[in-house]
Amino acid sequence: MAEAKDAKRYRFDGERVLHLADLDTDGGVSREDRDRIEAETKTLQEKICAMQDRLYADGREGVILILQAIDAAGKDSTVKHVMSGVNPQGVDVYSFKTPNTEELAHDFLWRVNRCIPERGKIAIFNRSYYEDVLVVRLRELNKTYKMPERCTGKKTSEFFDERYADIVNYEKYLFHNGYRVVKIFLNVSKKEQKKRFLERIEVPEKNWKFNAGDLDDRDVWDKYHEIYEMAINHTASAVAPWYVLPADRKWYTRYLVSQILLKTLEDIDPRYPKLDEAARMGLADCRRRLESEGKKKDAEPAK
Amino acid sequence: MAEAKDAKRYRFDGERVLHLADLDTDGGVSREDRDRIEAETKTLQEKICAMQDRLYADGREGVILILQAIDAAGKDSTVKHVMSGVNPQGVDVYSFKTPNTEELAHDFLWRVNRCIPERGKIAIFNRSYYEDVLVVRLRELNKTYKMPERCTGKKTSEFFDERYADIVNYEKYLFHNGYRVVKIFLNVSKKEQKKRFLERIEVPEKNWKFNAGDLDDRDVWDKYHEIYEMAINHTASAVAPWYVLPADRKWYTRYLVSQILLKTLEDIDPRYPKLDEAARMGLADCRRRLESEGKKKDAEPAK
Repeated sequence: MAEAKDAKRYRFDGERVLHLADLDTDGGVSREDRDRIEAETKTLQEKICAMQDRLYADGREGVILILQAIDAAGKDSTVKHVMSGVNPQGVDVYSFKTPNTEELAHDFLWRVNRCIPERGKIAIFNRSYYEDVLVVRLRELNKTYKMPERCTGKKTSEFFDERYADIVNYEKYLFHNGYRVVKIFLNVSKKEQKKRFLERIEVPEKNWKFNAGDLDDRDVWDKYHEIYEMAINHTASAVAPWYVLPADRKWYTRYLVSQILLKTLEDIDPRYPKLDEAARMGLADCRRRLESEGKKKDAEPAK
Repeated sequence: MAEAKDAKRYRFDGERVLHLADLDTDGGVSREDRDRIEAETKTLQEKICAMQDRLYADGREGVILILQAIDAAGKDSTVKHVMSGVNPQGVDVYSFKTPNTEELAHDFLWRVNRCIPERGKIAIFNRSYYEDVLVVRLRELNKTYKMPERCTGKKTSEFFDERYADIVNYEKYLFHNGYRVVKIFLNVSKKEQKKRFLERIEVPEKNWKFNAGDLDDRDVWDKYHEIYEMAINHTASAVAPWYVLPADRKWYTRYLVSQILLKTLEDIDPRYPKLDEAARMGLADCRRRLESEGKKKDAEPAK
């Protein structure tokens, strides 16, 4: 079984407290490691493909992989590079944007529930219900919600403590129902984000990825990271761990995400369904029917 | 505010333990009470209609009314009689039948989530996710589920204790998000069920409501009621109370359900949205524009 040994350093399952300031954003690797790491990533991805085929055939367990990060940390490119190559029939990717009016008129998990995959599938959430304790807290959007006073009138800390608890319960519930939830935060440095923003501004093909509002979140970098830290510490659990991955070197991030996904699949240990005696007999019957077709045809007189 | 004083006797919110055997199924009323009760029900329903209009306009809180019962206890007729007359734009009724393949491939609340109403609406669940701890437990359907061994391999009591807890958490979560969940069990006697079954068999217009399988559940009456009792005791809470209502006299059941629904709405105390100063000024502007239309027309020369 894969051990996700490199990713393990970045795993938070409620046993220890996350201090973002203490974590590296480059993984301690250097340019000369790149070729070796990329080759290893390729091997991991081949194993992921094989395991995904089994997961789908087995159909008893589902995987939900959540990607959270600030802008330009590499969510889209992680999805693209880690998941390309996997049979798309077994993978759903959902990007959660600003909620629309219908979504805002419901409980915050309503739109998420619609994206829970059938067991046997992998769902990737590019952003997720964690936005409801991240950007919502940052911008105090909860105070603008059309909800009764008993909800909106609460103290901020109380409101979000309740949401954290609701999320923990929800992920526990999903585990009880045959799902694994794995949560990844792409931890990019302020310096690297600046570099990527400038690239998006300078390279015409990347312009579409940038909008001026992205700088507003950058302006409140420390506050936003504090909110991330709180959310992660309150929702890290053994059944739904967080991985806070270094994201300054994309090729290393992809390696770690592949390692985590493969480990998740290997823990599930999906099997191709085995036929029982009666079903095997049935298959033997079918073989005879197929084979006798040829004989009948041969026996028919030529027209 | 309505007190739902008659229904209160049948309320379980976790403070006291339900023993089904101790509860009456006829409400202690007699035929001569009928006219008076029906007149009172009519008054309650008028109040419900007025409150529902406000609930919809207010749009800050939603109501989920769950009806559970064994066969022929009167779920359909309760919905019909209590809810007819209410503006259907603000009411959704969902009947949960045997789950289909797609639903079975998901967590058990998946299909329910899709039916959570927008805030401002009332949803009636004719049967609900409680089936997943009732008929599923009775028929041991959980053992046939395509789920990992860690789910299906559990002891029955452990599996359902987990489900009860998940339901309690779910209803708490809904409350945090601006919903009221009210759960009603229609408690009919074995004698009355027999009478109603015979009627369904004898009256051609009622034949469609009967199927032979209904007798199978009747055969395990005691076991089924024990399972109901367990489920109710494990999931009764202050934010999502159960009402175990006498169901032998339909006119009395309807009275109690109307009382409960009205009390729920009065507790919410919905208000027509009040305009702020700027919006009121805007309305005054609009009035002037509308009024000046007429003047312009008058001033136009006749063609």
